[in-house]
Amino acid sequence: MTIKPLADRVLVKIEEVQEKTASGLYIPQTAQEKTQIGTVVAVGEGTEKVKMTVKAGDRVMHDKYSGTSVKADGKEYLILGMSDILAIIE
Amino acid sequence: MTIKPLADRVLVKIEEVQEKTASGLYIPQTAQEKTQIGTVVAVGEGTEKVKMTVKAGDRVMHDKYSGTSVKADGKEYLILGMSDILAIIE
Amino acid sequence: MTIKPLADRVLVKIEEVQEKTASGLYIPQTAQEKTQIGTVVAVGEGTEKVKMTVKAGDRVMHDKYSGTSVKADGKEYLILGMSDILAIIE
Amino acid sequence: MTIKPLADRVLVKIEEVQEKTASGLYIPQTAQEKTQIGTVVAVGEGTEKVKMTVKAGDRVMHDKYSGTSVKADGKEYLILGMSDILAIIE
Amino acid sequence: MTIKPLADRVLVKIEEVQEKTASGLYIPQTAQEKTQIGTVVAVGEGTEKVKMTVKAGDRVMHDKYSGTSVKADGKEYLILGMSDILAIIE
Amino acid sequence: MTIKPLADRVLVKIEEVQEKTASGLYIPQTAQEKTQIGTVVAVGEGTEKVKMTVKAGDRVMHDKYSGTSVKADGKEYLILGMSDILAIIE
Amino acid sequence: MTIKPLADRVLVKIEEVQEKTASGLYIPQTAQEKTQIGTVVAVGEGTEKVKMTVKAGDRVMHDKYSGTSVKADGKEYLILGMSDILAIIE
Repeated sequence: MTIKPLADRVLVKIEEVQEKTASGLYIPQTAQEKTQIGTVVAVGEGTEKVKMTVKAGDRVMHDKYSGTSVKADGKEYLILGMSDILAIIE
Repeated sequence: MTIKPLADRVLVKIEEVQEKTASGLYIPQTAQEKTQIGTVVAVGEGTEKVKMTVKAGDRVMHDKYSGTSVKADGKEYLILGMSDILAIIE
Repeated sequence: MTIKPLADRVLVKIEEVQEKTASGLYIPQTAQEKTQIGTVVAVGEGTEKVKMTVKAGDRVMHDKYSGTSVKADGKEYLILGMSDILAIIE
Repeated sequence: MTIKPLADRVLVKIEEVQEKTASGLYIPQTAQEKTQIGTVVAVGEGTEKVKMTVKAGDRVMHDKYSGTSVKADGKEYLILGMSDILAIIE
Repeated sequence: MTIKPLADRVLVKIEEVQEKTASGLYIPQTAQEKTQIGTVVAVGEGTEKVKMTVKAGDRVMHDKYSGTSVKADGKEYLILGMSDILAIIE
Repeated sequence: MTIKPLADRVLVKIEEVQEKTASGLYIPQTAQEKTQIGTVVAVGEGTEKVKMTVKAGDRVMHDKYSGTSVKADGKEYLILGMSDILAIIE
Repeated sequence: MTIKPLADRVLVKIEEVQEKTASGLYIPQTAQEKTQIGTVVAVGEGTEKVKMTVKAGDRVMHDKYSGTSVKADGKEYLILGMSDILAIIE
């Protein structure tokens, strides 16, 4: 199944946060804050008003409460508007 | 009965989700999440501001709470605005 | 009494839904869902921004909760904006 | 006292509805639905965006909950925007 | 103290309503409806979008709940936007 | 500490109202209405859409509930948008 | 980890307020008002409509309730729109 976002929409795969503690152990996600970070999977063509300034593979930061959540092939995605994406993380 | 959507409206037939379990059995829809997927049946002519970028036969993903539900000939449809359609599924 | 809708308004006569059951009997309207279908009676001249794409006699489908209801000569009408009309039924 | 509506405003005298019953008797207004009909008394000059398409003397139909009610010389008026007027009655 | 309204603002002195009863007596204001009438005291210069069509001395009618009330030298004023003024009274 | 307002913002120092009673005594502020008057301290550069029509030193009247309050060096300020300023007082 | 704000977004590091008392002691932050001050860390490229008038290193004042809070490398940031920034502090 391939999801092709339309217009100014961006498909983002929600990141599973894994963070080592000082001793190198992974702490389970429930012990952490819900991430606002994801990886861009596909990008719409943009519109006359909205240019797309992210590309597939970019790690992005987005507002916690924006977008529509989508499940496909057992993984969780978000379909966000371009303007819901706040920053690129490098 | 034929429903011809006007302006930037799109007529979508709501998909009855059937998903095989590992053993090949179908699970009934009530045991699943409500789908946000449908098949485009008819497309309005668009407007000066809104170009129609889906066509009849496209499988599309839409926001769960948008559109107006319509029953015709015993089947369930949604009339959505073009901007309520988030992505095409291939 | 003649009602002439102004600008982008459309006067629609609400349809009394009568639906045969399998045995050919009519079921009274109260046993059905409230219809969202009507017949266009008169159409405003449109505005610079809104072209009128329905005409008197068209059967149309509209959002259940839009428009202003009007009673005239004992019949029920709705005055709708052009954009409240979702589709033409043929 | 003369009230001159400004811009796209229209001064409408609220109509006292009197309706004969089958026996020819008038039923008092409180027993009826609140009318949405009035007679145009005066019309503003319009604006760049809004052309005035009603004139003094027109009987008009308006949305029940729009406008500002005004009492003058013991009579009840409404000051409506041009866009609050839905139709002319002839 | 002089109050000079800016842009599309209008300074209006709220009118103290005094109405003779049939016997010629004045009834105190509390026994009446709150007036929506005032006298224009000063007018802003207008903006590119809003032309000022009232002048100092005009008696005007305004929406009961618009504007910002101001007390100066013991008198009550309202600062209204031009579009809050519905009509001129002559 | 100098505060330089951006775009169409205006920095206003809230006025401490002191009013002599008939006997010449000052009544403390708590016994009075909260003032809506201030003195302009600094003015942003304006924007393409908003021209700045107040200058430092102007006494201005503003809507009671607009702006963001700021404390600096023990004094109270408001950062207002140009359109929140209703009038200049002379 | 580097955060690159998009479009008209600005990344601001929230300032830890430390204020000497008269005796030169620092009072802990909980005893103070929550600051609305931060330092600009990175600035988006702006858009056709929004020019960026702050730069990295500027100390800025912003509305208490705007922006999206972000934690990175144990420090607290805000991603603000350019229009949420009220003033520069010098």
